[in-house]
Amino acid sequence: MTKPPFNAAIEALSPPPVPAVQDWASAYSGGHGPLLDLSQAVPGYPPHPDLLRWLGEAAGSTAYAGYGPIEGDHALRQAYAKHVSALYGAPIGARDVHITAGCNQAFVAAALAVAGAGDKVLLTNPFYFNHDTTLAMLGIGIGRVDCRAEDGFLPIPDAVDAAIGPGVKALALVSPNNPTGAVYPGALLETLFDLCRRRGIWLILDETYRDFLPPDRQPAHRLFSIPGWEEGLIQLYSFSKSFCIPGHRLGAVTAGAETIQAIAKIMDNLQICAPRPPQAAIARALPALGEWRLANAFEILRRAETLKETIEGVGEWEIGAVGAYFAYIRHPFRGTASSEVAEKLASEAGIVSIPGDYFGIGQQDYLRFAFANADSETIRLLRRRLIDFRL
Amino acid sequence: MTKPPFNAAIEALSPPPVPAVQDWASAYSGGHGPLLDLSQAVPGYPPHPDLLRWLGEAAGSTAYAGYGPIEGDHALRQAYAKHVSALYGAPIGARDVHITAGCNQAFVAAALAVAGAGDKVLLTNPFYFNHDTTLAMLGIGIGRVDCRAEDGFLPIPDAVDAAIGPGVKALALVSPNNPTGAVYPGALLETLFDLCRRRGIWLILDETYRDFLPPDRQPAHRLFSIPGWEEGLIQLYSFSKSFCIPGHRLGAVTAGAETIQAIAKIMDNLQICAPRPPQAAIARALPALGEWRLANAFEILRRAETLKETIEGVGEWEIGAVGAYFAYIRHPFRGTASSEVAEKLASEAGIVSIPGDYFGIGQQDYLRFAFANADSETIRLLRRRLIDFRL
Repeated sequence: MTKPPFNAAIEALSPPPVPAVQDWASAYSGGHGPLLDLSQAVPGYPPHPDLLRWLGEAAGSTAYAGYGPIEGDHALRQAYAKHVSALYGAPIGARDVHITAGCNQAFVAAALAVAGAGDKVLLTNPFYFNHDTTLAMLGIGIGRVDCRAEDGFLPIPDAVDAAIGPGVKALALVSPNNPTGAVYPGALLETLFDLCRRRGIWLILDETYRDFLPPDRQPAHRLFSIPGWEEGLIQLYSFSKSFCIPGHRLGAVTAGAETIQAIAKIMDNLQICAPRPPQAAIARALPALGEWRLANAFEILRRAETLKETIEGVGEWEIGAVGAYFAYIRHPFRGTASSEVAEKLASEAGIVSIPGDYFGIGQQDYLRFAFANADSETIRLLRRRLIDFRL
Repeated sequence: MTKPPFNAAIEALSPPPVPAVQDWASAYSGGHGPLLDLSQAVPGYPPHPDLLRWLGEAAGSTAYAGYGPIEGDHALRQAYAKHVSALYGAPIGARDVHITAGCNQAFVAAALAVAGAGDKVLLTNPFYFNHDTTLAMLGIGIGRVDCRAEDGFLPIPDAVDAAIGPGVKALALVSPNNPTGAVYPGALLETLFDLCRRRGIWLILDETYRDFLPPDRQPAHRLFSIPGWEEGLIQLYSFSKSFCIPGHRLGAVTAGAETIQAIAKIMDNLQICAPRPPQAAIARALPALGEWRLANAFEILRRAETLKETIEGVGEWEIGAVGAYFAYIRHPFRGTASSEVAEKLASEAGIVSIPGDYFGIGQQDYLRFAFANADSETIRLLRRRLIDFRL
């Protein structure tokens, strides 16, 4: 009996980073005060009580116990289309919306809709690690567009243009960015979309963190107002962050109706339909909880300000970029692997972050701080600990 | 501007069958009485009131609003491991369990864990259509093991042996079978597992419908008692059918701990973790609702008996196989495509079924009746309608 092999593409994947990083934290003695967990992008406050009530009602009802439409419940598709139409000032219909079980799944579906094994998708470097591992898992090649600190970690159109070669089917972007926090200007996104269209590739745009943009940066872009946007754009979103319900798994794809139908074929295989109770609850919450979400977005902006002030007061630690949920922080230990810095920072100083190396090539000088998890008071605790920290 | 192409593997997929089939039903005038929907495998009765209460409590609680462990909440992994250990009379630990968002997702994860694009997985013919489309979507080649009516639609070991060739990484089986209803004898499964091990390939065994076996057929097999089973077996299950909660999306993989860790890498990409509120509720329901589930299983067995009697009274319609949720019915219109028969049966006689052709090659003489959806009284309505039915 020989043990049958695993898929080599899966064996080659790194284990999921968040649990690995949280393991480091378990070695922290508590000597500097409470653990500051800035690892996973989770909201640091609970869902609205009304939303909890609606979630409970829907989950306890026979009405949502059965399968729903693959593309999502009509009430949510309709409510989300209306919300997106208002947000971007462009007419989006329910038929342009596909509900998914979170935004990772939305990315899997979007990537598979346009690329198969042997094709290529372009990612920025640094990238969101699940985008990288998803493509690798599917046998889709990865082309990299380097984003430099001196450009504020924005992708430069010429670099994208140069990276589009044979087999490239799509460019995948995240804005506000994970891991860097960089907010891509609307004009840049429009230029990059135009470039993608001219070069005959798709733009997959993950806007999981868009609700945490400053109000003067809304709408984030005018892509949905461009005639023919349906023939090139696939936009992704997550309800997890803004509604504080990552455990319920809910996301959405906005794309042309033809793309939605391709994605429905994929979703039918992936899990038939997204879980239904949160669909029913969010269909109610979307029109009802706008002010609450806005107030939270302001709170997250305040935390970003606190983080900036705090890091500026530390000395050799620098902010590479910051926005929405994340700051990309340059540590002072040049030449040391970011994983070594992050491990010691977690186990000795009780600050849990994700090493830059987990997000791409040449990121050893950086750490990702998911500061949205912590309130301003907690964020200020970073200062003393970072000043005292030695490798 | 040229429209960028879709992934050819996705374009080549048929649209999801269930919605297509249900469209035929919308043309039914009601002339023969109520619509008899035997298309999708959904329980025809509601979840237990206690389960609905637990689902509502968990969904309305902040405790399950956040992300959980990728592999599943410990309470559910533990409860399910205990349940599986008792059911099969073999020691299964929580570390051998991965919770997924339904059994389609469990299959995606299992298939990807052992096969990538260019590899091959063997399916029976006829097959469960989402297994076929999942492999095609992932660029994994499909080898077919023909199951013949004269063998009761069971896979014959020699046919499996002959189908194992270069690049074949796994054999995927479903028992009780979808679409045929055939229940694979435990001894056959053990022979096939032994064959797989000798030939160095995995056995992926989908037991979504195992709770509806007659009590004298439990345990369904002794695979988990075979030393080294962890190095070859990946077993799949769905909580949707037995607990009547397909809308909540919950399934499980049982496999060796090493396989579970490979699957965790995949699940992290697919959706980070299964939805958490149903995990909490099912962890309570598994030990508590055993009797209720058993009573339902008896009810489904009664429906199977009713279906057998009903079809036997019709004349030229024949039962190819029957078991658990499904009967595979041979229609009398030889030479006519099953899709034509199923469409007319839906639109004219108000009987919604899935054509055999959707499940594989050479299945034109068959229709799948998911009889578990209907109570015995409703099932008896089939007789008159089938007798009167003309093409």
